[in-house]
Amino acid sequence: MIDPILLKGFRDSLPKEEKAKKKIERKLEDTFSLYGFQPIDTPVLEYESVLLGKGGGETDKQIFHFEDNGGRKVAMRFDLTVPFARFLALHYSELSFPFKRYHIAKAWRGENPQKGRYREFIQCDFDIVGVDSAEADVEILSLMNASFKTLGIDDVVFHIAHRGLFNDFLEKEGIRERSVEILRIVDKLRKIGKEGVIEQLLPLLPSAESADRIISYITLGDGKNIDDAYSSIVSLLGEETENALRMKRIIELLGALGIKDKFVLDTSITRGLDYYTGIVYETFLSSMEAIGSVCSGGRYNNLASLYTKENLPGVGASIGLDRLMAALEELKSPLVSESPTSKVVIYFRKDEGNKALLAASGLRKEGISTDVYLFEGKKMKTLFDYAGKNGNKFLITFQDDGKMQVKNLETREFTICDKMEEVIAICQ
Amino acid sequence: MIDPILLKGFRDSLPKEEKAKKKIERKLEDTFSLYGFQPIDTPVLEYESVLLGKGGGETDKQIFHFEDNGGRKVAMRFDLTVPFARFLALHYSELSFPFKRYHIAKAWRGENPQKGRYREFIQCDFDIVGVDSAEADVEILSLMNASFKTLGIDDVVFHIAHRGLFNDFLEKEGIRERSVEILRIVDKLRKIGKEGVIEQLLPLLPSAESADRIISYITLGDGKNIDDAYSSIVSLLGEETENALRMKRIIELLGALGIKDKFVLDTSITRGLDYYTGIVYETFLSSMEAIGSVCSGGRYNNLASLYTKENLPGVGASIGLDRLMAALEELKSPLVSESPTSKVVIYFRKDEGNKALLAASGLRKEGISTDVYLFEGKKMKTLFDYAGKNGNKFLITFQDDGKMQVKNLETREFTICDKMEEVIAICQ
Repeated sequence: MIDPILLKGFRDSLPKEEKAKKKIERKLEDTFSLYGFQPIDTPVLEYESVLLGKGGGETDKQIFHFEDNGGRKVAMRFDLTVPFARFLALHYSELSFPFKRYHIAKAWRGENPQKGRYREFIQCDFDIVGVDSAEADVEILSLMNASFKTLGIDDVVFHIAHRGLFNDFLEKEGIRERSVEILRIVDKLRKIGKEGVIEQLLPLLPSAESADRIISYITLGDGKNIDDAYSSIVSLLGEETENALRMKRIIELLGALGIKDKFVLDTSITRGLDYYTGIVYETFLSSMEAIGSVCSGGRYNNLASLYTKENLPGVGASIGLDRLMAALEELKSPLVSESPTSKVVIYFRKDEGNKALLAASGLRKEGISTDVYLFEGKKMKTLFDYAGKNGNKFLITFQDDGKMQVKNLETREFTICDKMEEVIAICQ
Repeated sequence: MIDPILLKGFRDSLPKEEKAKKKIERKLEDTFSLYGFQPIDTPVLEYESVLLGKGGGETDKQIFHFEDNGGRKVAMRFDLTVPFARFLALHYSELSFPFKRYHIAKAWRGENPQKGRYREFIQCDFDIVGVDSAEADVEILSLMNASFKTLGIDDVVFHIAHRGLFNDFLEKEGIRERSVEILRIVDKLRKIGKEGVIEQLLPLLPSAESADRIISYITLGDGKNIDDAYSSIVSLLGEETENALRMKRIIELLGALGIKDKFVLDTSITRGLDYYTGIVYETFLSSMEAIGSVCSGGRYNNLASLYTKENLPGVGASIGLDRLMAALEELKSPLVSESPTSKVVIYFRKDEGNKALLAASGLRKEGISTDVYLFEGKKMKTLFDYAGKNGNKFLITFQDDGKMQVKNLETREFTICDKMEEVIAICQ
């Protein structure tokens, strides 16, 4: 006998969870379609050299990679961004730009499993590629807002910032060349706190005052609405730089759409990754900031440069579906609660099989989800357990006189029916 | 620069194909739900020992397996059946039986790619586990029929047979102990023809007459309706064995459901795999038998025995989605034809961004899929190409007087609107 165990960090999805996942995915897909985004898919396995680029380094240890039976070095995708960049380069001539795509799929990383983190996880990415404008930025922000709305999550706050603005500030401070390191440290603010950030910044900076001014910059939006925070940035910079004007325009467009109050200017957001060049954002649920960002992203202006000479500016966001589902559980969202397997269950005794399947067929033709309880003749107690677990609302049984009994399992009322039409009318 | 190439046997899914795939999957999922089936998912990676069982042998070369960074021997799933057996054993106490599940997901095999065969492919499996009855068998057959109906495929014929009946016949012939080998050879009939089957059978049989009688058995249903084919079997067997009675009952139930004419008794169907014990079936499209079976399966009476002592009889079927999609292409099904990315596209000039995003927001709130053409100010020619590719029906532009123009791109008529309500009414 083989022990039916799973690998560490991997999970099965039981019906309750899988039904919830499918519901959530459909809602998101419908919203993406409403915004004119199209789905794509890419292979789970690719050449290691294609996925890892020149680098390797830190990612290397975390990805699942191996030599296949044909001696090729292959790897399982560890996100949906790198395959998308490769996809854009490969299919450039077949796509029409601006290209708006979404992709909901699994990715794999060999991280040490912790609460809400798994080695197999589902990403949901959406991007607009081929244009660099405030309107494109706001289409993504507006879609983020619509996505959470469609999931019934209201207490969401989008924290936005701008990489270029941060660099404008560092330029003014005379420490622009240290940008990459500084942004990486600032990105840890939520984890290590102000003291931690200062401690790590000091060795890089000309003075302690410089560290203080960085802290002032990254906290300037705290407690302010987005317009006031923007004014603070401008007065700190002493001018409205090009990046500032982009941010101003974004705020203006959010205002025109009537969704400005969902956004805060959080200058501490930098996103660790190098490829971001414009706005960046993270999304927090007010009632549980601790679980971290449930949707993040930003503008990158040369994502596919590893694979093509075409210049492809883009902006996008990514929802971590596993974390989102954990959040919905905490919020006791109806989306993740147990949902009925079928509305109707039909019970039959020996020799009533024909009737049972025929009745099921009649109900299904009317779009009423119907289960046939296939343990003919089992005790009614077993049946009621089964119906309870499956959330059935109606139970149909057959009488000796050939009539059908329809029992409402919620009210316990029952009706005797001669014809299928009557049964259908009750169960509809 | 890295060459953005894919591994042999792997494909990207572009929007046209991915939209079709999602439509097909939704239709199938809705049909499965209508029948009271629930979705599950399992990890892509599992312990190699769990997926391969004791065996290994032939499958071994074809599966993607490797040692992970923690030194575990792991493998990517090569079907959805083995993970399901493992799933049943692991979650036995959490599930309520009979358990009806479906699973639509990718699997991987390192086969040599050929037309319609890929190393990454999508399976769609549905099973009823925990009961051995004709009613359960027919629930699966009825669901197969409903699945093709929901996809608009009418010219489908389900070929059913019964492993046990074949064995009853071999028993009568006195060659029951050669059953496994004989069934495997007969399974190749479509590939190697009668002559080929006879040639391979002869070394196993006591006489050439015995081979002839096997050929008679496996062709007895040719050109007959299912009832006549059944009579032929019984007269060949000389009695109605238990297996015959099961088949008789299945035919009776198919008759009660009014779908009997979709089924033929094709005694040449054996399914190569060892685990089948009862009915087996394959599904062919009359207009293109050559592409092979698009939905196959059967009854197995001890699927999870490798992992648990619980006896779990089951019956199920599997649709190969890639082959099905290829078939739908050939059939010129609307399901796989290009579908619009969005109904409406909004064009804007510089400084009309607010209006454009606001109009999009208004339309989207009414459930009208709307795209904003983000290349502000580009030539109208470029826009019309874009709108054509995306299948947009309406184009909205803004006039200098602040009014909106809604152009129907099919009829080329246009209307001038003052208010969003008018725009919405036209585009609805």
